[in-house]
Amino acid sequence: MKPSSGRSNESPIGKVLTGTLPLHLDERGVLGVLEFADHLPFVPKRIFWINQVPARTARGGHAHKVCSQFLVCSRGQVQVEMLDGHQTKNVTLAAGDYLCMPPRIFASQTFVGPDSELMVVCDRPYEAEDYIYDRSEFVIGSGGSS
Amino acid sequence: MKPSSGRSNESPIGKVLTGTLPLHLDERGVLGVLEFADHLPFVPKRIFWINQVPARTARGGHAHKVCSQFLVCSRGQVQVEMLDGHQTKNVTLAAGDYLCMPPRIFASQTFVGPDSELMVVCDRPYEAEDYIYDRSEFVIGSGGSS
Repeated sequence: MKPSSGRSNESPIGKVLTGTLPLHLDERGVLGVLEFADHLPFVPKRIFWINQVPARTARGGHAHKVCSQFLVCSRGQVQVEMLDGHQTKNVTLAAGDYLCMPPRIFASQTFVGPDSELMVVCDRPYEAEDYIYDRSEFVIGSGGSS
Repeated sequence: MKPSSGRSNESPIGKVLTGTLPLHLDERGVLGVLEFADHLPFVPKRIFWINQVPARTARGGHAHKVCSQFLVCSRGQVQVEMLDGHQTKNVTLAAGDYLCMPPRIFASQTFVGPDSELMVVCDRPYEAEDYIYDRSEFVIGSGGSS
């Protein structure tokens, strides 16, 4: 048994939200919009974006202790694998699709095509101590996320 | 003479901020970060991103009455032309470079290469009435932005 302080019988994956943001396409390209009041369930503190990823590359590969993240596929396709010790969930995001993840989910993102891109909005600044890299804690039957 | 309510002898372009955000490059691609507390001089309400723009295409072509915008080039190169009735300024943003614009600047963005991309953080939600499309109001000698 691990210390109980951070553990829960609830599955964080059960609280994941998904949806699609508006995209405006014309001859000048693609414009996608995230209106915080409409879609963001938290006050954002940081944004990061990821691009120029070789096709089929997996990134991420960690969980967060307290940070929530709102992932938006801004181009191409990104597959998100999630596990939380209770269940697993795989979601494929196409351009404009989002996925809002509470903490305590171990997630990896596979960038499907060479021009697949991701934008991530976070409710916390970067905090090195917020990362959990041990995937085994999140495998079903491990007793839940630590 | 135009009504004086919205006019000013100050040049909004004089308040434009520029800088460069951290980019993390490795074999898995490029990750860029905007920590709001470090770089954003306002509370953000909306983000939009623009990609898949044909090379040499100009976008924008308007001013905002009250909205401030923080532009980040997230890939490639974007040239920003600004005019405010008092002066003009041209800035070329490379990947990671940002430009923070107060309102009352008429701006156009030219996407240099075919994979040039822009991310824009705004301090207001979308408001159709906030846009000014008449470029002539912002030409030097026009009496300043209306």
